Amino acid sequence: MIVYKSTDWWEALRHLRSSGVIRQLLKRVLWVGLYASIVTAFVIRFDTINVVVDKEFFSFLGILLSLLLAFRTNTAYDRFYEGRRLWGQLVNNCRNLAVLLHPRLAPDDHATRTYLARLLSNFPIALDGHLRKGVRFEKLEAVEPGFIEQLQTVRHVPSRLAAQLQEFYEQLLREEQILPTHLLTIQRHHEALLDVAGACERIKGTPIPFSYSYFIKGFITVFILVMPFNLLDSYEWLTVPITMLGAYALLGVEMIGDEIEDPFGKDSNDLPLTQISNRIRANVHEILGVELHEDVRGLADAPYSVVF
Amino acid sequence: MIVYKSTDWWEALRHLRSSGVIRQLLKRVLWVGLYASIVTAFVIRFDTINVVVDKEFFSFLGILLSLLLAFRTNTAYDRFYEGRRLWGQLVNNCRNLAVLLHPRLAPDDHATRTYLARLLSNFPIALDGHLRKGVRFEKLEAVEPGFIEQLQTVRHVPSRLAAQLQEFYEQLLREEQILPTHLLTIQRHHEALLDVAGACERIKGTPIPFSYSYFIKGFITVFILVMPFNLLDSYEWLTVPITMLGAYALLGVEMIGDEIEDPFGKDSNDLPLTQISNRIRANVHEILGVELHEDVRGLADAPYSVVF
Amino acid sequence: MIVYKSTDWWEALRHLRSSGVIRQLLKRVLWVGLYASIVTAFVIRFDTINVVVDKEFFSFLGILLSLLLAFRTNTAYDRFYEGRRLWGQLVNNCRNLAVLLHPRLAPDDHATRTYLARLLSNFPIALDGHLRKGVRFEKLEAVEPGFIEQLQTVRHVPSRLAAQLQEFYEQLLREEQILPTHLLTIQRHHEALLDVAGACERIKGTPIPFSYSYFIKGFITVFILVMPFNLLDSYEWLTVPITMLGAYALLGVEMIGDEIEDPFGKDSNDLPLTQISNRIRANVHEILGVELHEDVRGLADAPYSVVF
Amino acid sequence: MIVYKSTDWWEALRHLRSSGVIRQLLKRVLWVGLYASIVTAFVIRFDTINVVVDKEFFSFLGILLSLLLAFRTNTAYDRFYEGRRLWGQLVNNCRNLAVLLHPRLAPDDHATRTYLARLLSNFPIALDGHLRKGVRFEKLEAVEPGFIEQLQTVRHVPSRLAAQLQEFYEQLLREEQILPTHLLTIQRHHEALLDVAGACERIKGTPIPFSYSYFIKGFITVFILVMPFNLLDSYEWLTVPITMLGAYALLGVEMIGDEIEDPFGKDSNDLPLTQISNRIRANVHEILGVELHEDVRGLADAPYSVVF
Amino acid sequence: MIVYKSTDWWEALRHLRSSGVIRQLLKRVLWVGLYASIVTAFVIRFDTINVVVDKEFFSFLGILLSLLLAFRTNTAYDRFYEGRRLWGQLVNNCRNLAVLLHPRLAPDDHATRTYLARLLSNFPIALDGHLRKGVRFEKLEAVEPGFIEQLQTVRHVPSRLAAQLQEFYEQLLREEQILPTHLLTIQRHHEALLDVAGACERIKGTPIPFSYSYFIKGFITVFILVMPFNLLDSYEWLTVPITMLGAYALLGVEMIGDEIEDPFGKDSNDLPLTQISNRIRANVHEILGVELHEDVRGLADAPYSVVF
Repeated sequence: MIVYKSTDWWEALRHLRSSGVIRQLLKRVLWVGLYASIVTAFVIRFDTINVVVDKEFFSFLGILLSLLLAFRTNTAYDRFYEGRRLWGQLVNNCRNLAVLLHPRLAPDDHATRTYLARLLSNFPIALDGHLRKGVRFEKLEAVEPGFIEQLQTVRHVPSRLAAQLQEFYEQLLREEQILPTHLLTIQRHHEALLDVAGACERIKGTPIPFSYSYFIKGFITVFILVMPFNLLDSYEWLTVPITMLGAYALLGVEMIGDEIEDPFGKDSNDLPLTQISNRIRANVHEILGVELHEDVRGLADAPYSVVF
Repeated sequence: MIVYKSTDWWEALRHLRSSGVIRQLLKRVLWVGLYASIVTAFVIRFDTINVVVDKEFFSFLGILLSLLLAFRTNTAYDRFYEGRRLWGQLVNNCRNLAVLLHPRLAPDDHATRTYLARLLSNFPIALDGHLRKGVRFEKLEAVEPGFIEQLQTVRHVPSRLAAQLQEFYEQLLREEQILPTHLLTIQRHHEALLDVAGACERIKGTPIPFSYSYFIKGFITVFILVMPFNLLDSYEWLTVPITMLGAYALLGVEMIGDEIEDPFGKDSNDLPLTQISNRIRANVHEILGVELHEDVRGLADAPYSVVF
Repeated sequence: MIVYKSTDWWEALRHLRSSGVIRQLLKRVLWVGLYASIVTAFVIRFDTINVVVDKEFFSFLGILLSLLLAFRTNTAYDRFYEGRRLWGQLVNNCRNLAVLLHPRLAPDDHATRTYLARLLSNFPIALDGHLRKGVRFEKLEAVEPGFIEQLQTVRHVPSRLAAQLQEFYEQLLREEQILPTHLLTIQRHHEALLDVAGACERIKGTPIPFSYSYFIKGFITVFILVMPFNLLDSYEWLTVPITMLGAYALLGVEMIGDEIEDPFGKDSNDLPLTQISNRIRANVHEILGVELHEDVRGLADAPYSVVF
Repeated sequence: MIVYKSTDWWEALRHLRSSGVIRQLLKRVLWVGLYASIVTAFVIRFDTINVVVDKEFFSFLGILLSLLLAFRTNTAYDRFYEGRRLWGQLVNNCRNLAVLLHPRLAPDDHATRTYLARLLSNFPIALDGHLRKGVRFEKLEAVEPGFIEQLQTVRHVPSRLAAQLQEFYEQLLREEQILPTHLLTIQRHHEALLDVAGACERIKGTPIPFSYSYFIKGFITVFILVMPFNLLDSYEWLTVPITMLGAYALLGVEMIGDEIEDPFGKDSNDLPLTQISNRIRANVHEILGVELHEDVRGLADAPYSVVF
Repeated sequence: MIVYKSTDWWEALRHLRSSGVIRQLLKRVLWVGLYASIVTAFVIRFDTINVVVDKEFFSFLGILLSLLLAFRTNTAYDRFYEGRRLWGQLVNNCRNLAVLLHPRLAPDDHATRTYLARLLSNFPIALDGHLRKGVRFEKLEAVEPGFIEQLQTVRHVPSRLAAQLQEFYEQLLREEQILPTHLLTIQRHHEALLDVAGACERIKGTPIPFSYSYFIKGFITVFILVMPFNLLDSYEWLTVPITMLGAYALLGVEMIGDEIEDPFGKDSNDLPLTQISNRIRANVHEILGVELHEDVRGLADAPYSVVF
């Protein structure tokens, strides 16, 4: 994700280079410009088409299309922001689990504290990988011998980590380090981990229905193809830049929607899952009083730039 | 549901064939084209109608209609996505039930683990059938002798399965395999099963109110019938393709709304309930450490295509 | 509510007759047609008015009005659908209460099971009446001698039924048929009953604020009165049907909003409360294993028609 | 709040008189009419201004303004309806508290029942005053000697009442009239009281951000000032009524938004807090079986008129 | 935040001076005026450009832009209001924690009561600083020796305070001042503290995606640059004020959106976090019966002005 201050206009312009979707948009706008030039040249050269244009009708179609694009924009943004909210819940629930267990564990029981801090920190890191290209096991921290090897045999890694955390709570209960009362609250936070995982899978696996997506793409295509013919009688050669402006507007809204819709990729507008995971790790370790290497802790801070 | 990547434009075009609603839309647009041709031919031949048209007035009516269609689109999509969210909750709660019970059941008590894994996996499969054409009992796995036969005498199968799971929890409580504390958390996950079932029945049984639906259909019909008369004085024979473009836009939005509104059918844009059920089954079995046949496990993975 | 399939266009047209709001809309459109005819006749006869019309200005006012109507439509539909969602929650919570208590009651304790099934089934039936014309006591099933008579002395029947259910749970607790743990979950489902009742009262008792409602009605009235004058210079006698088309669009959206807004009446677009109540009764009896007369059970199934 | 039936048009017109905002709106529209008359007279007399007007540009600005007003309307209505929903939750939670405690209190323990019924009923009455001009202590019922006097020394009365209820629950727990299990459910209902109070304070204390409010007011002012100049060339003296129509539409939407936004005043469109409080009192007394004076009970019923 | 009454128009105008965003907007509008003057002077002097303009096309682009700005406005306001809602939850949960613990603590145990009141009051004050420039430790009240010093070594101060509160609850449980039952309810309120903290961090750290923000800024810039050329043929020198009016509208919506989006700054439209923190402190102390210095208590009341 590009971290920027919306009031710091010029500084942020630097990021345009790193925004893949803006670059691709400009490329497509150039193709539309080429098309408009050919149409204009052809018409002016042969003076073939000379109809009176019903501008109100195209204006009405344009407004219908604008409303569809507003719908598209809203649904895409809702998914983006729901994704962000889910990862925010992950932060909150991991912190709350650490806060809740901290005073129940003996202050000097470093082994148990480290075990918990690492196991809990592994969950977001594994989920990050699970939602992107696959879990990067070398990023996880081993909490016991054979831990990583066993995880690699599993198909749904987040479930396995959740089950192992559950085993840990049951062990605390058996050892009477926590009361049944505590377990009830723990469960509420704990189940949120898999709820977040499932909801992220849902966002990733369910794009806007195919027919909407293609209906809108088809509508835009036809609308842009027809556009120069509507403008030619007023603008002649100015038709080319004005068609490009219209294409910029329509294609832009649609393409950004496509990109934002799945916020779990590695486009420059996607969510900084790795950074959030690092932040959870730093928080959980601090709350439980477990040392964390300075380098790892530093990963949690967002510089003014692109983060993943 | 058609599984596609919105950035992979050409590959996805293959799916147009499988999208019933797009095919039907094109058919209707052809009929509109025929109608527009007849009107145009008649008018040009006899030169009967020659009014000045108030284009702003039809533009205003068009915008009112567009706003209604935006409303239609939003409600239809909300139902679609609520349906998806509900099935996502089903995934989460089944996983969480398995994670919670896993460390309480003896690791080598395969009978109980298998009983739970199968009974829990049966719920989404039964709900899938219940929402579509009826429960396909041959898809369910027998958890005890006479299980299927008994289910077939029942009118509301999901309730019966929920009641049987409830009996199972009570038995665990009686055998002190779980504490009352556990039951409280189990209940929260368990009641979500029937909540999802009820909410899906609601979505299926309550389309957009009849009067809205027919008001919009009537409005579109009149609007398209009048459209050629508005365009004739500017476009002559070009009226036909332009009317078809307008009809494509208006009918398309409305028809896709109709299709998306009930996401539990077997149209190509409907939700992949069967695949989600299979995924739940694979997850639950893995978490509880119960073997599942390789073929069944494979059903859970979504290829790049149409799934149900 | 009219139960229809939106894809089954012709079959559903039959229902137009039963839709009161559509009939009333057509009547009002005819009155507008009469008014437009008088205006047109007068103007053509005396040729009195001959101003240039600023069509863009009326187009802008029309769009502002359209946006207000979109707002009106959204709020009305939100109430309709919230009402439906609330009754869906009633279904879910009644089912969940039955599922939860079923394994705790002795399988052969028919008296208690029947008492619970009837008392629980009475709640939605009483709420249905409470929201409409008043509780129809003859529809309730007596659960003990003097039950109906006592209810008739009460001002808020749903609260009384909820209190009696609460007494029942306390009795089960005293007899140790349920544990305190069970009571906690029961309470969550039980309180949903009065939450639904209260929320339905809220929807019923709080229409859209008076000033919005009358502001919009006033705006539409003026807009339709002015409409023929805007159209006369272009259309002459065609002004009449075109004004009627405009009035159909504006009045229709507003009137349907008025009707949908209170979904607890007996208009043909209102919610099928009685049918949902019957469905809850059938479900609860089936889950608890209590026989229900075949006739009563049949009331739960929605035929393809108008239901209440 | 004006209680009306939206289908009973003529009867409701009576209420126009009582709607302050509509009266003020009409006054402002008259001022705009005066301004438009002066502009028109001046222009026609001296024939000074004679520009060609770009009507599309003003139409575009008008649509942008309409979208802002739609946003304004939505946020104002959301606050209004959130306020109503919060008071609905107050109703539900008070009823649920009474239902829950009713079977735990001895049927003949009138002292305790009366204490609870009065203390609980006092909360909404105090909150009503707290949100309006200040708590009217004479409306509260004394539950014990010195009760009112002590309350008068307190700055945040609802918190104090909540604390006293909490003391009451703790006393019941000490006397073993309720189990710890009951306390858990009671707490959920009880905390809703202060949640509602806090949320109402939030709605009251946070209007739409200052800059939005003034930006929109400024935009409307300029737009109306410019409006006659846009209409003069088409309408001459008709400019005056048409400007007034435009001003009615724009000012109306904005002024109603301003009024609805804070639903806790005593404008005729504000929420009937006092009536809801009376209804809660009647319900709670009935559920707990405590006599309430006939006069007080009658206050709970909404006649077809203006209520506060 | 500027505290104002929307009906008290003139009084509130005083605040315009303190609204930074309005001042900056006016400055930008002046720059646009300068640009429009240069264009107009150039065109009129040399009479170079003389195209027929397609006003409908620009009107359509303007409407698309308006819809994007409406989207921008909605998302910005949603963040603003979510921020306000979160701090409202903080108020509610702190009050509820105090109400819940008040009757369990001995009435004369001033030490414990003061410890709790101060520790709880510190949380919102620390969160205020954490969200703005950094925690201002001199604002916190020491609850025990070395408290402030220890906090200063911590990276995430709110988590540390939450952990210390958790230790306090555990101590009450150990001393049997509260039962396990109480702990369950306490946890629900307590976890809300960190949930609010995390959600505020989310709002602060996730602006609207970079590509939307820059796409809209780019669209507005081009649209304003082109605007004078569209108006010149109708208005000549009047082009300058009318371009400025258009720029005021477009830039204003966008800039206010930018400002509102992060409600945790110290702009005059941002949320009054410090005042809310003071109000929580006053409430908590009053409920627990702990004296608070008159000066500190007074900070909680909102005068009719700008508060932070």
